[in-house]
Amino acid sequence: LSAHIHSISFVGAGNVATHLAQAFYASGYTISGIYSQGKASSSELSAKVNSKICFTIHELLLQTDLVIICVPDHEIADVLEALVPSDALVVHTSGGTDLTVFKEKLTNYGVIYPLQTFSKTTLLSLRDVPFCIEASDREKLEELRLLCTSVSDKVMEINSYQRKILHLSAVFACNFSNSMYAIAADLLMKADLPFELLHPLILETARKATTHPPSEVQTGPARRSDIATMKTHEAMLKTSELYREIYILLSKTIQAQSDETQ
Amino acid sequence: LSAHIHSISFVGAGNVATHLAQAFYASGYTISGIYSQGKASSSELSAKVNSKICFTIHELLLQTDLVIICVPDHEIADVLEALVPSDALVVHTSGGTDLTVFKEKLTNYGVIYPLQTFSKTTLLSLRDVPFCIEASDREKLEELRLLCTSVSDKVMEINSYQRKILHLSAVFACNFSNSMYAIAADLLMKADLPFELLHPLILETARKATTHPPSEVQTGPARRSDIATMKTHEAMLKTSELYREIYILLSKTIQAQSDETQ
Repeated sequence: LSAHIHSISFVGAGNVATHLAQAFYASGYTISGIYSQGKASSSELSAKVNSKICFTIHELLLQTDLVIICVPDHEIADVLEALVPSDALVVHTSGGTDLTVFKEKLTNYGVIYPLQTFSKTTLLSLRDVPFCIEASDREKLEELRLLCTSVSDKVMEINSYQRKILHLSAVFACNFSNSMYAIAADLLMKADLPFELLHPLILETARKATTHPPSEVQTGPARRSDIATMKTHEAMLKTSELYREIYILLSKTIQAQSDETQ
Repeated sequence: LSAHIHSISFVGAGNVATHLAQAFYASGYTISGIYSQGKASSSELSAKVNSKICFTIHELLLQTDLVIICVPDHEIADVLEALVPSDALVVHTSGGTDLTVFKEKLTNYGVIYPLQTFSKTTLLSLRDVPFCIEASDREKLEELRLLCTSVSDKVMEINSYQRKILHLSAVFACNFSNSMYAIAADLLMKADLPFELLHPLILETARKATTHPPSEVQTGPARRSDIATMKTHEAMLKTSELYREIYILLSKTIQAQSDETQ
């Protein structure tokens, strides 16, 4: 356990708060308070981690060594508004929000950015999940490092600029690849074919990306410059202008990527 | 083993031929011949499956129960050109090519379409890989079913139209998601961050798609309608017009998809 952090409280009780609170609780930390505007989710989470529910952020600050803010990016400002100037250590978990957001109100602050996609329903080991940390000073950084090491084997310091790039790249690798799966599922459904047919392909494509640079293992009609197949596919997508636009744009991108690697 | 098919030969010695030949050989079939314009790859494959190398397609037809054509789609026509009319059973492995391509020259024909992304270097079990089959008549279909069942647990009959849709949906789920990984890798490299940071996220996103409909587990700024983050990301991509276009188009798609599921 961290030398100075024994008790942790959370602002927010969504996916990220749920996973972090449960992981830290399981590692022996006390979860001292949960403050959330969603009353159902805060009762649910507080029951899981044996914590009390707080009704103000002020109440949360009084009885904890660390406050972890887990709210959507655009609500961080509202949370800061409610903070009284304090010596408490406060961190956020946002990929896209600068460390300096805390500067005016606090002296001890930081960021804990766990790079994973969380759903409340899926229990997940965090040991492989990269925890990217940043802090107001070296001492606080080491406290956060110790804390995060209790749940993850991959804790690294990265600055606010790098975290923003990481977040942006995660949008491509995770959110956008998932939307490609969703389009595939939609196309199959309309032809009375089960999406399950694609499961092995999806898993193997992801696995391959962890053993080879993705641009080097690119396959498909665009990679082979198979113009006839691409034209057929575009014609098949004529009922969905959006899908057709995506097909053309991503094929163009793959061709540009393969020109670079050749 | 199939009642009528004992020996199999291949036109082509690329990724698909290599995986199929090795799998059928391991299941007890004789690989009687390999014909390929790539001399190095045909010697390599013939050595692996104890087969002879043939120098004409005619030679291949004489001494085999089944010919499997594994060449790029646009080369299938050239292979058919070289075929003399014959009673031999001949199949192709193309997602996008109609069964009827064989009609003029042959009486016994079919399709074996294994739905997976193959690299020569990665050895892969085919047991989970869907094998989509189609044939000129019921008897040939059952022969192909028996054959494919020797290497895969997921053999199903689908028609040429469905196979084309399946192939198109695989371009989205596999080729396009891989190109999203490639963009993420490129963005990270330019910020001196290792692509390995995204591995757990990529694997978890793929895994989740096998347990939930992808549109229901979509996350990210577009799904949350987090306009501020999207605008920041677009500004960060100002040095790559192609990436910026993709970001905008796929964010629009995710918003359209989530309107449908809400």
